[in-house]
Amino acid sequence: MPLDVERLLDQLTVEEKASLTSGSGFWYTAPVERLGVPRIMVSDGPHGLRAQPGDGDHVGLGGSLPATCFPTASAVASSWDPSLLRRIGEALGREARACRLSVVLGPGINMKRSPLCGRNFEYFSEDPFLAGELAVGIVDGIQSQGVGTSVKHYAANNQETDRLRVDAQVDERTLREIYLPAFERVVTASQPWTVMCAYNKVNGLSASENPWLLTTVLREEWGFQGLVVSDWGAVYHRVPALLAGLDLEMPPAPRSPGEVVAAVASGEVPPEVLDARARTVLELVSKGAAVLDLDETFDVDAHHALAREAAAESVVLLVNEGLLPLAPDTSLAVVGELARTPRFQGAGSSQVEPTRVDVLLEELRAERGEVPFAAGYGIGTTGQDEALRAEAVEVAAGADTVVVVLGLPAADESEGFDRTHLDLPANQLALLAAVAAANPRVVVVLVNGSTVVLGDVLPHAGALLEAWLGGQAAAGGIADVLTGRVNPAGRLAETVPHRLEDSSSSLNFPGEAQVVRYGEGVFIGYRGYDASRLDVAFPFGFGLSYTTFALSDLEVTTTGSVAAGSLAATVEVTVTNTGRREGAEVVQVYVGDPDASVARPPRELKGFTKVRLAAGASERVRVVLDQRAFSFWATRQGRWAVEAGTFEVAVGHSSRDLPLTRSIEVDAPRLAEPLTAGSTLAEWVADPVGRELLAAEAAAGQPAAVLDSDLLSVVGSMPMSTLANFGTMTPDHEALGRMTAAWRARTGDLS
Amino acid sequence: MPLDVERLLDQLTVEEKASLTSGSGFWYTAPVERLGVPRIMVSDGPHGLRAQPGDGDHVGLGGSLPATCFPTASAVASSWDPSLLRRIGEALGREARACRLSVVLGPGINMKRSPLCGRNFEYFSEDPFLAGELAVGIVDGIQSQGVGTSVKHYAANNQETDRLRVDAQVDERTLREIYLPAFERVVTASQPWTVMCAYNKVNGLSASENPWLLTTVLREEWGFQGLVVSDWGAVYHRVPALLAGLDLEMPPAPRSPGEVVAAVASGEVPPEVLDARARTVLELVSKGAAVLDLDETFDVDAHHALAREAAAESVVLLVNEGLLPLAPDTSLAVVGELARTPRFQGAGSSQVEPTRVDVLLEELRAERGEVPFAAGYGIGTTGQDEALRAEAVEVAAGADTVVVVLGLPAADESEGFDRTHLDLPANQLALLAAVAAANPRVVVVLVNGSTVVLGDVLPHAGALLEAWLGGQAAAGGIADVLTGRVNPAGRLAETVPHRLEDSSSSLNFPGEAQVVRYGEGVFIGYRGYDASRLDVAFPFGFGLSYTTFALSDLEVTTTGSVAAGSLAATVEVTVTNTGRREGAEVVQVYVGDPDASVARPPRELKGFTKVRLAAGASERVRVVLDQRAFSFWATRQGRWAVEAGTFEVAVGHSSRDLPLTRSIEVDAPRLAEPLTAGSTLAEWVADPVGRELLAAEAAAGQPAAVLDSDLLSVVGSMPMSTLANFGTMTPDHEALGRMTAAWRARTGDLS
Repeated sequence: MPLDVERLLDQLTVEEKASLTSGSGFWYTAPVERLGVPRIMVSDGPHGLRAQPGDGDHVGLGGSLPATCFPTASAVASSWDPSLLRRIGEALGREARACRLSVVLGPGINMKRSPLCGRNFEYFSEDPFLAGELAVGIVDGIQSQGVGTSVKHYAANNQETDRLRVDAQVDERTLREIYLPAFERVVTASQPWTVMCAYNKVNGLSASENPWLLTTVLREEWGFQGLVVSDWGAVYHRVPALLAGLDLEMPPAPRSPGEVVAAVASGEVPPEVLDARARTVLELVSKGAAVLDLDETFDVDAHHALAREAAAESVVLLVNEGLLPLAPDTSLAVVGELARTPRFQGAGSSQVEPTRVDVLLEELRAERGEVPFAAGYGIGTTGQDEALRAEAVEVAAGADTVVVVLGLPAADESEGFDRTHLDLPANQLALLAAVAAANPRVVVVLVNGSTVVLGDVLPHAGALLEAWLGGQAAAGGIADVLTGRVNPAGRLAETVPHRLEDSSSSLNFPGEAQVVRYGEGVFIGYRGYDASRLDVAFPFGFGLSYTTFALSDLEVTTTGSVAAGSLAATVEVTVTNTGRREGAEVVQVYVGDPDASVARPPRELKGFTKVRLAAGASERVRVVLDQRAFSFWATRQGRWAVEAGTFEVAVGHSSRDLPLTRSIEVDAPRLAEPLTAGSTLAEWVADPVGRELLAAEAAAGQPAAVLDSDLLSVVGSMPMSTLANFGTMTPDHEALGRMTAAWRARTGDLS
Repeated sequence: MPLDVERLLDQLTVEEKASLTSGSGFWYTAPVERLGVPRIMVSDGPHGLRAQPGDGDHVGLGGSLPATCFPTASAVASSWDPSLLRRIGEALGREARACRLSVVLGPGINMKRSPLCGRNFEYFSEDPFLAGELAVGIVDGIQSQGVGTSVKHYAANNQETDRLRVDAQVDERTLREIYLPAFERVVTASQPWTVMCAYNKVNGLSASENPWLLTTVLREEWGFQGLVVSDWGAVYHRVPALLAGLDLEMPPAPRSPGEVVAAVASGEVPPEVLDARARTVLELVSKGAAVLDLDETFDVDAHHALAREAAAESVVLLVNEGLLPLAPDTSLAVVGELARTPRFQGAGSSQVEPTRVDVLLEELRAERGEVPFAAGYGIGTTGQDEALRAEAVEVAAGADTVVVVLGLPAADESEGFDRTHLDLPANQLALLAAVAAANPRVVVVLVNGSTVVLGDVLPHAGALLEAWLGGQAAAGGIADVLTGRVNPAGRLAETVPHRLEDSSSSLNFPGEAQVVRYGEGVFIGYRGYDASRLDVAFPFGFGLSYTTFALSDLEVTTTGSVAAGSLAATVEVTVTNTGRREGAEVVQVYVGDPDASVARPPRELKGFTKVRLAAGASERVRVVLDQRAFSFWATRQGRWAVEAGTFEVAVGHSSRDLPLTRSIEVDAPRLAEPLTAGSTLAEWVADPVGRELLAAEAAAGQPAAVLDSDLLSVVGSMPMSTLANFGTMTPDHEALGRMTAAWRARTGDLS
């Protein structure tokens, strides 16, 4: 039975309303028993539920109820498959129903500004478009089950270092183009039940107290209808947060309800503001309470099978010199402690108590019989490295092909702190080199939550799989790819650079003195590597298959107009599976605006589609780009803008393998600001009407600097009003007044 | 006769005072004839005077009185020789006296944030220490003649694009460590008569209206006693500028005096503020008027000779595979239009009408008799490139050695606009390749105002001289180096990168929408290349000689203490001329703080000395580093700070050739802030007293998260007050209150 929210609001006391806006205990909203308002439960769980028994929290270090641990976000993002995310979401929704959980606290959709961010394994991508599409998939999936989501962490929470205090200083264009679009996309497309505000400050104001973020942008511009919940402990000043648009503080600070009540009494908080927040909470409770009476279970086996499918789809095949798929008759050895002791998720609030855990060594032995194994290295410092290595070399030398599993120790990446380097452990790299010296047929499997550098891996890897943190069935998924049961179709959702220093944020990460300057602006991820023309180890969007694909016959058709806000481009291309087995290709569409008046990335992902084809088959695929795909955020105008000119639409296999390109011509209204006395001489000269007016004044006897191109190059950047003070170069103040008025009259003032 | 300033202030009307603060015409202060206050004249002239006849301005495009054109700032900075700068300054002072000029508008000491800045040729370096030392030399030299200087452009004027409107967004640490120190050094060491404020905004406020820059920092912190003059046209709001600390608006806007008078009448400007500004103007006039009655000339020949000496000292020998100095019996050909049509200065307000101009071809012919010459290329588009090239190849093929002069066209670099690339013209590069194919013994001479990339030059250059824009005697100076009359001793004052994209500001230059974000922070120039571990073509500080030098026996002795503000380190090293001819070495001292709590450059220039040695001779040189050499700007504390720990003092030949290093241990008071409820758990645990108090509360029954290192890694970045809300991990709010009070009591509150 839905609650009668408006009636309840009439009946609730101020104290009760205040209580509703602050939750109850670690995981519950506050009930109002007097009026039959139940409490509902929320739970961590971007890639699996962490429903904790009791009211406290152990941030993943204590126990929680068993749940399916799906691949982490950085893994599943490599699928580039929103429909897979949707199916995972549906499963998460079913598990939530079985636990009578009303809201799953995920997905995390922050951008990977730096590969060092300790929580990157919980985030999708360095690209906002890809992250937004994936977020829509999982949110739609979870919410299709009558369970809510919490899209997090809004906004600019891109590091763990000093995350509760740090001020992310980001210019608005960068926010609009990079850090907000995934949120914008999922809010407008899927209306998540809740959005979780971040811990950090954004341009001086805590996210929880930031009316521009929580109200202006989220509700007024994007039309968000749901509830804003704080990240756990992200409220620093209760009343400003309430006023800014925060609906629910979690967990409640003991003094919060009292502070809210006092602020209403003093008039600092208008009663209708508290009503609005309480209404949002009641609306959430009303929807969320539907799960409270359920008595459902979920199909543990089916969910594990889905987790395995997702794990396999998350694998990115980076190198394959003919070693994969493993030939049925090749004799195999397995090396690496991680093949026996799997690491499949990250630490912190997202940590799931899995229903079961696959082990790669067991998976391969189940398939191949007795496979020799050596640990090769210890996780952390064991003092046994040399002995382990020697044993591994012996094992490796006796097999046709050796599978070496390498990866980051759990201590290297977690919520709560950032990495300081991108290296694999030295003992693992030494092991790899030793093994490769003994047996050159080395298949490397990488297990890590976010990017590692591969300079010491690539010389030794005849095949290389990036398997990420693939969840409880990761090992099964990896085995499926190794054996060829699954043809890998993962594509990198984040660039693998050669060096940490190549990353555009490296001089500004993680900041200092409680401030982090987003100095690289819009140029994160491939946008930065491309703008700086840096070679990378593996580009964004890259991934091999056991088959091959060709693209042909690109057509780009534009319709609508910028002026009407209806510009669209339909991109059609033929994809052909040119190899000998079925497989899936991700057709990627990038847009570039080489003549932009602002610094734009050379190309940006604006569309993609994943297509599965039988050997030899072809399909004509279509991707539609809307006007936003061509836009940038014009800061001074405070709006999205498309500039007239030539755009490049490039289609291909990765951000750096784009065999097909079309230039399209776009017409658009001029973006320039109205000419005034403060406009520069160069701006007056560049404007047709302005130039005419200058010439007219010159003809009437005013100084005519405009006619002297040398002078223009030196003083063209000076405002007309400044030059008028100089007296000898340009029209005087009086003439300038005439010109400005005439310009307005003739152009209708386009401001 | 000095003016009786205080008496005049008593006699002046408000209108007269207002008039004094706004100048008269383009180049004069306002006279007050009634009271015998004369007008004095100022003139552009960082590297030579541009005393224009009449009252108007032609920004270098009209005529001016003949004056010696010394090497531009970027050239003479390569001398790394403040005493040479001083001698040039003395000559400029003598020329000013001969023109009855009271103030020379220079030097320009802005940092080379990007190699693209169109006005880099007017600035010294990418390093603030070097720029500051050179500025002291020239300011002391000019002012020793009773003529004033105007150190410009204060501050953060590091680009020409939109220079009158652009807002330079720079964090305070970056300002303090990079963009202000050269100003600070010259102000505190030399008290320039005037400082010129910049056109641009700094963090939202125009430099001319910026009380923090003009009053807090310049006068109150640095003790500046002189006058602040606006850059020409840099005053946008007259009254705020007056209030902020601007003494003199140049040139006067017609309505300015009236606005000032009205503001005094309305009370917006207190009379004592106008008095203070007028007093500063009168003090300047009083000093500057001393030249008005002079009847002096200057020694044109002697100044030309000094210009030639300076030009030779400005040359940086980058490559020499045994071609230089030119053997007396080698037959020579000269190729390149710039050998016949010299470019020796940049365009804009600094442009000098030289007393004479040396021509390289003539210099070499005077010495060697008839030297074959071919233009090889045209400046700009001539359509004759192929024919010119063919002719040059023929000329080159007939000589033992060919001198090829390449450089930037004047249209490429100027005040008023920035470059968009770092390339030499394509026709010149094609010429070089063609010539080198015909004759591999190629000596390349570069003529350019700021850095060009050399990837297409280096494969063809058996010797390479960077001669910059060396002033009217540049050709003589180059000839002196080529022939070996002068042993080159120049060192790069700016890095030569491989690619523009390697420059740390490349993603943020020149900004857009009237904003430029200094996103790279302190990491400009070599600080950026070093931090990003990028290979460069030629590092900061690099330069060859016709002899060689060795460094040995480094000793570093520290005295004083950080606590007393008296830390100093005496660096002593033995320099030996290990070659066969006399020459000069620049011993460079860099300091690094590898364990700093903030992101510091790997090394920074903190001292240098130039030493001239006969072949085989040795000298023990000493460089003293003061406490500042070890400091960074601690933004939250608002002061310079030295952190305890190990510092590296490295001594060598360039920023990347530092054969001698000593680690020194520095003791210093802790920088950390006082512990409060807002301090993080990790901060409490890291502090010895804090940790003890946590343990005591744990022993008394409070939750003891501190004892769990796994938990600490995940929630250590959370403030104690946040964790107290959680209830289960750390002491509660009441205990936190006790702990904070106890901490204060025990530490004496170090805040």
